[in-house]
Amino acid sequence: MTIRIAVAGATGYAGGEILRILLGHPALLDGRARLGALTAWSNAGSPLGEHQPHLGPLADRILTTTDTANLAGHEVVFLALPHGQSGAVAQALGPDVTVIDCGADFRLADAAAWSRFYGTAHAGTWPYGLPELPGARAALQGAKRVAVPGCFPTVATLALYPTLAAGLAAPEIVITAVTGTSGAGRSLKPHLLGSEIMGNASAYQVGGIHRHIPEIVQNLGSATPADAAHANVSVSFTPVLAPMSRGILASCTAPAQPGVTARDLRDAYEKAYADETFVTLLPEGRWPQTAAVLGSNSVHLQVALDEAAGRVTVIGAVDNLAKGTGGAAVQCLNLALGWPEDAGLSTIGVAP
Amino acid sequence: MTIRIAVAGATGYAGGEILRILLGHPALLDGRARLGALTAWSNAGSPLGEHQPHLGPLADRILTTTDTANLAGHEVVFLALPHGQSGAVAQALGPDVTVIDCGADFRLADAAAWSRFYGTAHAGTWPYGLPELPGARAALQGAKRVAVPGCFPTVATLALYPTLAAGLAAPEIVITAVTGTSGAGRSLKPHLLGSEIMGNASAYQVGGIHRHIPEIVQNLGSATPADAAHANVSVSFTPVLAPMSRGILASCTAPAQPGVTARDLRDAYEKAYADETFVTLLPEGRWPQTAAVLGSNSVHLQVALDEAAGRVTVIGAVDNLAKGTGGAAVQCLNLALGWPEDAGLSTIGVAP
Amino acid sequence: MTIRIAVAGATGYAGGEILRILLGHPALLDGRARLGALTAWSNAGSPLGEHQPHLGPLADRILTTTDTANLAGHEVVFLALPHGQSGAVAQALGPDVTVIDCGADFRLADAAAWSRFYGTAHAGTWPYGLPELPGARAALQGAKRVAVPGCFPTVATLALYPTLAAGLAAPEIVITAVTGTSGAGRSLKPHLLGSEIMGNASAYQVGGIHRHIPEIVQNLGSATPADAAHANVSVSFTPVLAPMSRGILASCTAPAQPGVTARDLRDAYEKAYADETFVTLLPEGRWPQTAAVLGSNSVHLQVALDEAAGRVTVIGAVDNLAKGTGGAAVQCLNLALGWPEDAGLSTIGVAP
Amino acid sequence: MTIRIAVAGATGYAGGEILRILLGHPALLDGRARLGALTAWSNAGSPLGEHQPHLGPLADRILTTTDTANLAGHEVVFLALPHGQSGAVAQALGPDVTVIDCGADFRLADAAAWSRFYGTAHAGTWPYGLPELPGARAALQGAKRVAVPGCFPTVATLALYPTLAAGLAAPEIVITAVTGTSGAGRSLKPHLLGSEIMGNASAYQVGGIHRHIPEIVQNLGSATPADAAHANVSVSFTPVLAPMSRGILASCTAPAQPGVTARDLRDAYEKAYADETFVTLLPEGRWPQTAAVLGSNSVHLQVALDEAAGRVTVIGAVDNLAKGTGGAAVQCLNLALGWPEDAGLSTIGVAP
Repeated sequence: MTIRIAVAGATGYAGGEILRILLGHPALLDGRARLGALTAWSNAGSPLGEHQPHLGPLADRILTTTDTANLAGHEVVFLALPHGQSGAVAQALGPDVTVIDCGADFRLADAAAWSRFYGTAHAGTWPYGLPELPGARAALQGAKRVAVPGCFPTVATLALYPTLAAGLAAPEIVITAVTGTSGAGRSLKPHLLGSEIMGNASAYQVGGIHRHIPEIVQNLGSATPADAAHANVSVSFTPVLAPMSRGILASCTAPAQPGVTARDLRDAYEKAYADETFVTLLPEGRWPQTAAVLGSNSVHLQVALDEAAGRVTVIGAVDNLAKGTGGAAVQCLNLALGWPEDAGLSTIGVAP
Repeated sequence: MTIRIAVAGATGYAGGEILRILLGHPALLDGRARLGALTAWSNAGSPLGEHQPHLGPLADRILTTTDTANLAGHEVVFLALPHGQSGAVAQALGPDVTVIDCGADFRLADAAAWSRFYGTAHAGTWPYGLPELPGARAALQGAKRVAVPGCFPTVATLALYPTLAAGLAAPEIVITAVTGTSGAGRSLKPHLLGSEIMGNASAYQVGGIHRHIPEIVQNLGSATPADAAHANVSVSFTPVLAPMSRGILASCTAPAQPGVTARDLRDAYEKAYADETFVTLLPEGRWPQTAAVLGSNSVHLQVALDEAAGRVTVIGAVDNLAKGTGGAAVQCLNLALGWPEDAGLSTIGVAP
Repeated sequence: MTIRIAVAGATGYAGGEILRILLGHPALLDGRARLGALTAWSNAGSPLGEHQPHLGPLADRILTTTDTANLAGHEVVFLALPHGQSGAVAQALGPDVTVIDCGADFRLADAAAWSRFYGTAHAGTWPYGLPELPGARAALQGAKRVAVPGCFPTVATLALYPTLAAGLAAPEIVITAVTGTSGAGRSLKPHLLGSEIMGNASAYQVGGIHRHIPEIVQNLGSATPADAAHANVSVSFTPVLAPMSRGILASCTAPAQPGVTARDLRDAYEKAYADETFVTLLPEGRWPQTAAVLGSNSVHLQVALDEAAGRVTVIGAVDNLAKGTGGAAVQCLNLALGWPEDAGLSTIGVAP
Repeated sequence: MTIRIAVAGATGYAGGEILRILLGHPALLDGRARLGALTAWSNAGSPLGEHQPHLGPLADRILTTTDTANLAGHEVVFLALPHGQSGAVAQALGPDVTVIDCGADFRLADAAAWSRFYGTAHAGTWPYGLPELPGARAALQGAKRVAVPGCFPTVATLALYPTLAAGLAAPEIVITAVTGTSGAGRSLKPHLLGSEIMGNASAYQVGGIHRHIPEIVQNLGSATPADAAHANVSVSFTPVLAPMSRGILASCTAPAQPGVTARDLRDAYEKAYADETFVTLLPEGRWPQTAAVLGSNSVHLQVALDEAAGRVTVIGAVDNLAKGTGGAAVQCLNLALGWPEDAGLSTIGVAP
């Protein structure tokens, strides 16, 4: 039977990236799967080519409205909707449908943290779509519901987990992450206009208010020894908007434990990611850059020990739309359906 | 008598910015001062217009070689040379010449720190050209030698000094600063090519090796109480190269002292900078962006208390070429010659 | 008496640029003039600093609504409104008020051309604010109403007028002009989002439909000999949107008349602009670039004869917000009030 | 037998793009072909990952020197060398080796035109690697030597050929093409530095001197009726450098023949490219943009008739590194080896 795949939110950047990746996915190329409904809100009725001109093969596909009727009849539904909208849509989809949610709704286990940062009732908790996080992969295999991680938490977690899990640094974490604008979606806000973005770097949501903080705390909290509570992890997180469309470059630091060496640090990362296709510790002397992972599902990492400051610094680069959203979504689909985890996913960036 | 001003390194970005500002300086407009030698190395003999096409009024000025003979006969000499070259040039200039050095050579008081980070013998220590630093302004008035601060130290110092001086945070500092490419100068290096820079964010000199670190430590060390040694200040500093020509957006954090409130923090900045023309604490709710200070001599700051993470975060924006180099150089000239400190300097950015 | 100046549309890019220039204008610095009402539509009631964070000295000024009452009581009113709105506002302002309109409403003499391109009734024709166009300056001196030219017509006209007026080329003109995004204003349209703009060049309004075409035809038509009608001038105009905030780089060509030499061409431009402060024919071998005029009121030109193709090519660079709009508006104000034409206007760009 | 493929010039942008595409090519994925020598000049001895960090799977491959010995023993050799170097290298490769040259050396049939524009002796003429040009595909099938077209000629030819071949316009062509910086290669020149490129548009090689002109003349000359000589085609070509890494947006115009309609024009393109995978005439009302073809092998076209100006305008978008160079090179390889022409080549762009 051909697996029918719907994408809800096909005109957004996350939806577009899911489609871009699926168009090159072996299961769609050989007919095991095919694209069904592509849905949208205000743009329903128009051809996809008006909104995603880079997706040539789908240019003539007509968008339908994001509703229960149009999403019915698919074995797989990707949700690329604004935060808070996935819960209602997902409820209407049968338990046998594989639902991959790119929104935040089902990422957090802590209902109180959800309410504090999102201001609404907690929708629930689904398996967390970061297979490289210890224990996560097994829960994703065959899963019918998956919560794709946020873009910042993906790179922050992969950057710091090995250090914390190996006990090489205290969990008093400071992160400043530079991000391209596509992370904000196709939102018509003045500060996202090209004229405002180009030649400009700006900070936003500073001082502990960014919604990705509880997700980072949750992930890194799980890295600390079993007897340590989440509450022990503190995360200072500052996002910076930079003039580029894609990419996150995260600068992540934590206080080094006494006696830790640079060798200890490299060992921790080499061990943690030895079998991971999509996480690369760069050779010594090379530093991550977002262009090297653009369009790919890879995360590039490098770690340094600043002895004078007594801190571990880990730099991580990710394409926020690919491994940060759409690529992760397809990686989770692969696990959910029992396909090779890397099917349709590339470790090669598009540069320069 | 007309004051003759020479600019050594007139084809570089810092030299160009000094010239741009001087062309609008009242003392040059009304004839109290005039531009003399504009010098360069390999470009000597060619007109300035080939290298700085934006400086229309100077397009036909022929560059001469940076040497003692050409720099002689000026009352003021700006040095905009690569680090390590200012010492020899300055020595040949008489003690009555006002020398404003944009290089690093004379910024550090600690000869050992100099040697550790620059690998050469220490040239000496000149009055430090950050008038907003307590005590610095007096030393600059009438000075014959001035060391203009580095661009990162300027914004990092102004961002954190009030917090530290008021004892509101511990001096365990973590800074990640996003910078435009002009900070690297007109260097012909592959990673500075437009093709590599656009669409790309990259970290460099991570892990305590950036040369601006001892300068930040020196500045912020002076903010701690008198009985505290410099050694108590630790600075983790990570620079990130972003796709823009100008501007630094610095994210600066330190652990808040117990009981500190957001009000305490704002008070400290309002008090520290109440009389400063070129430092602005933004109204609550607005965050610094580099475009707002582009071409201006202003530094924009905002401060936040992250109670959950227990950290103070200060965001600072500066134009690395203006207040970060060329504007600071002219501000120091004004102090050195007894002119109004803000002569020729703007608080208005060029945006969008 | 102090001249009171109002700016209608102060939150837009044109309004912001007018304010940026006025803040450095001698008449405002010495108190002969001062800023009165700054008006807006939906943003009325908020401080200007929320919208124009680069205009530090005006950060606390509260915007008022763009209406007759608020604009009354000023000797000068700048209109920086969407096309089609100036007529009604201007009518309510007394005949003694100097009104400088940055919109298109009063630029065209040909009512039919207006209706064909704008689809509404023609509001009228005011003195055209391009002083460098033969005959235009005199009409602007003391004028109470001025129509500031469009950004594309400014550079296209200055680029081609001397060639046509000297009869060196036939008026069969082909122009492709690359523009930054600020020319589209602060419009919340998807294709103007930073994510869409960066890394992207796109054509728009191709095939004779851009509204600046009749304005270019009108200007260049006046360059042809007295017995030639406008209809003889044909203009093929293609705008291209490029990833930069400011600047227009126009490539303008026309068929060379037989026997014309490169020397003839240079002579024509040198003669035409010998006394013009704001138009520069670059030395041979140097080509215009928008960065060199960024923030300045200058237009840079270069001319070439392509003998094989039999065409004259003129390249022009302008800052669309400065000489292309806000700078031209202030230049016209200076002429209207009898101030030095270049008061407050710079020929120096902000680069890199 | 496994086909061994060498890439000479593997550290450049063209070489990198060839490698990026080959890494996803079915023949390399299934083992029919494999990468052999990757060669360079000054970077020989270093790992490819230092220069092409986006090509993760090849990060550890050590570069060897571009010489006869290292290129021997391969069935396929891609030459991605500076213009003028391919001739000597190619001569040393046996006649059975498939040589795909991305340089200009063998593109022109007219030795005089070569000498006039390149200043050296003509190396010869190889089959021209633009399969979509009538007659070209057959010559490429099984070819042992292929000259890959220049990036500008590719888009200009595809944009104008159908109009000229159908006799809908006179061959008096005016082209202005906006290009990203990667077209200039990884050259260490001041005007290619990120600080100079960003926020800047500039014209260069204006007035009939760009080396791609004779190639465009050659291609479009072949579109005119059999009794028309090349000399009848005139091409005015102006390149404009814009702040983006990849992409060319070409604005191409020619005088419409009397009576030509917009329908005639669309018909000509629909007919010309009906069977072409990599050339897309966009639906009416949509205009090409470079982001839509970034990383893809597609050319997007749109055509308009400007009745008032009497000109046909065709806009074309191409990724200069993909279909403009590296993608075209692989397309030619496919034809040369008898593989499916689109093997390894995508029609899907990477956006936003």
